[in-house]
Amino acid sequence: MRAIVITIGDEIISGLTVDTNAAYISQRLVSIGVDVTRRCSVGDNADDIEREIRDGLAQFDVVITTGGLGPTDDDITKRSICRVFGCSLKEDTQTLEAITTRYRQLGVAMTEGNRGMAMQPDGAVLLSNPLGTAPGILFDLDGKIFCAMAGVPAEMRAIVDTGLVPYVEKKGSGRSIKYQSLCTFGIPESILAAKLKKGGYVPDGVRLAYLPSYAGVMLRLRAEGKDEAEASQLVDRNFNALYPLIREYVYSTEQESLLEHVTRLLREKPATVAVAESCTGGLIAKMLTDVPGSSAYFVQGMVAYANEAKTRLLGVKRETLDEHGAVSQEVCAEMGEGILDSSGADYAIATTGIAGPTGGTPEKPVGLVYIGVAEKTGMTVERRQFSGDRDIIRVRSANVALNMLRHRLTKAQP
Amino acid sequence: MRAIVITIGDEIISGLTVDTNAAYISQRLVSIGVDVTRRCSVGDNADDIEREIRDGLAQFDVVITTGGLGPTDDDITKRSICRVFGCSLKEDTQTLEAITTRYRQLGVAMTEGNRGMAMQPDGAVLLSNPLGTAPGILFDLDGKIFCAMAGVPAEMRAIVDTGLVPYVEKKGSGRSIKYQSLCTFGIPESILAAKLKKGGYVPDGVRLAYLPSYAGVMLRLRAEGKDEAEASQLVDRNFNALYPLIREYVYSTEQESLLEHVTRLLREKPATVAVAESCTGGLIAKMLTDVPGSSAYFVQGMVAYANEAKTRLLGVKRETLDEHGAVSQEVCAEMGEGILDSSGADYAIATTGIAGPTGGTPEKPVGLVYIGVAEKTGMTVERRQFSGDRDIIRVRSANVALNMLRHRLTKAQP
Repeated sequence: MRAIVITIGDEIISGLTVDTNAAYISQRLVSIGVDVTRRCSVGDNADDIEREIRDGLAQFDVVITTGGLGPTDDDITKRSICRVFGCSLKEDTQTLEAITTRYRQLGVAMTEGNRGMAMQPDGAVLLSNPLGTAPGILFDLDGKIFCAMAGVPAEMRAIVDTGLVPYVEKKGSGRSIKYQSLCTFGIPESILAAKLKKGGYVPDGVRLAYLPSYAGVMLRLRAEGKDEAEASQLVDRNFNALYPLIREYVYSTEQESLLEHVTRLLREKPATVAVAESCTGGLIAKMLTDVPGSSAYFVQGMVAYANEAKTRLLGVKRETLDEHGAVSQEVCAEMGEGILDSSGADYAIATTGIAGPTGGTPEKPVGLVYIGVAEKTGMTVERRQFSGDRDIIRVRSANVALNMLRHRLTKAQP
Repeated sequence: MRAIVITIGDEIISGLTVDTNAAYISQRLVSIGVDVTRRCSVGDNADDIEREIRDGLAQFDVVITTGGLGPTDDDITKRSICRVFGCSLKEDTQTLEAITTRYRQLGVAMTEGNRGMAMQPDGAVLLSNPLGTAPGILFDLDGKIFCAMAGVPAEMRAIVDTGLVPYVEKKGSGRSIKYQSLCTFGIPESILAAKLKKGGYVPDGVRLAYLPSYAGVMLRLRAEGKDEAEASQLVDRNFNALYPLIREYVYSTEQESLLEHVTRLLREKPATVAVAESCTGGLIAKMLTDVPGSSAYFVQGMVAYANEAKTRLLGVKRETLDEHGAVSQEVCAEMGEGILDSSGADYAIATTGIAGPTGGTPEKPVGLVYIGVAEKTGMTVERRQFSGDRDIIRVRSANVALNMLRHRLTKAQP
């Protein structure tokens, strides 16, 4: 089954909004064996929307749209759908009831726009929206599945998970597709590729993709077979040839991020962590608490920007600051030891550096960051010189910190 | 000038990567008057890439691609470009020199793959890449501009800003396009639309878009004219009719986020801020320090998850915790007062709540958050019940906190 995902909205094509919806839908469809081979976005323009849907239906088995189903006047998707499927809009009692109930609960008066949201294309299967008022609109005609959903991410995700995915899975796909991930950290894409080449590995009946990010390079094998067994066999054969060549850089063979992996290790051990941040400014605490259930391992975070705060909050010595400067191995170590002591956590992370764009000197340029991980038995501080902008330097620092914590947790050599 | 942005990569269409590149390119092109009317993504498949580029050149004046120019074997874009423009690859001395220099500086041996990156389509204008080794590849033929760039965000942004945008601007656009933003907070899209309708406002020769996010709804007027004066006149006429109807919800008429606006107010005043976070887990500190120059206003942040940490770090009384629970107006107030006192900042933000997905009770359900903003003259605590997942609840809490701080900074009534 081949699919296209179409996202609709002026805010997307003009770049005001980053399109996270398309990524989510693709992921979920791929996970049930649907092959998403195309994505596209159009503005709030009836002709463009209609043409995209028609083109999609001509070329793909599954056509998914999000956006353009809200209560305001820039929403014209429903009318485009009616033209494509030759139907008209009709008030749907169940949707109207859901809208009325929701507004009663909210204690807000219904507007004409809200009531208009009960108008739905006649003949469509409506997928319920547990978090909002616009249901998913599904047509299943001539072996093709079409589905339109609202663009609010949480609502769209709920409709995908509770309505669309079960529907498409039931319908069944033809070919089986298998994926295998190898998540690496600390090695650039080009060196990984050179290592595989040197080891004599060539993809054999699979597609090998390199997916670089600031949290490492993910390698992903993709195999297609007439059934699951064939696809699995292909993937396994390639994995067994490839994995030994880069084993030392692979932190996980599941599709999990470095953050997910490290927080899983913390929960499994179990162990606790505290964070003292300067240049990362709360980013590491934010990441560690992004994960549900983080109170099991996260004790406390301190964001100490000013020197005075480093002394007062973390016990960094005045002399150390004067002698070595705030961005130094010595201050990083005192920050880590300070928070390890005061928090009582098993592990502590500390960062101090120059995220830029200003504040650099010839001796301590923008991108210089000291990253430390401490436990009772000792502390490691790494000096890193990152390139990139403020955001990138902070994200890279946070990921190096997570990887250092991973090494401590697994007792591997850093 | 009409443009299409094409992003290339299996990681994009499979949803492993969120496509932030397309948003950036669109924004920059729109800012110089280019009308981006279509976006699309394809996988690392030579036929798909070639077809997308050909289709784009047939329908648009400007065709931009990113991705598929890296050093590894999944990169096939360059060969597709050669087929479209009927040229061959040729080693470019300048690119080879840049690559050699970069690897010498890094102290890393060059691989065959790295050297291959010096091969460039013959006849292309090469746009230099100050942050990496793959230059932008530009063709300017028959009144159409084509440009292909690497997919690494920082490199792509550098090529766009230093090469592509100046090139396109010089080339000049025909019609003038003007935008005017009205950034609102604290009012849903549907109520905004109802207010405009009630006030008798109807878009007059412009397009009005509603761009909702968890940091508020941005309204954007878009006018097109034969010259700048005509486009400006259209935008102004509509702005003057619309603005008075929703003035109380508008925090800015520039295109700036709530975060950018509030940190600008802090710098201008000037004033300092400290943050004590429980459920937002460092997110507010992270946001406040996302902005370059944040050391001017950001004093310190505390992430106190456990009750014990709230007492030890922020001076929250044991009795208050016992009597009212950690998620309460009283604890939020003591957190805010605690950090205001100990930090010496002019303003303090405090949050405590249940971000979920677990930890809720009938009395204190998931999504209940207390948000406080304190200054020496007093403190405001708001009780909010948010819907959505963990991420959404945290982001909404952070934005309400920023808006409360904005009210204090501008002395408007909250």
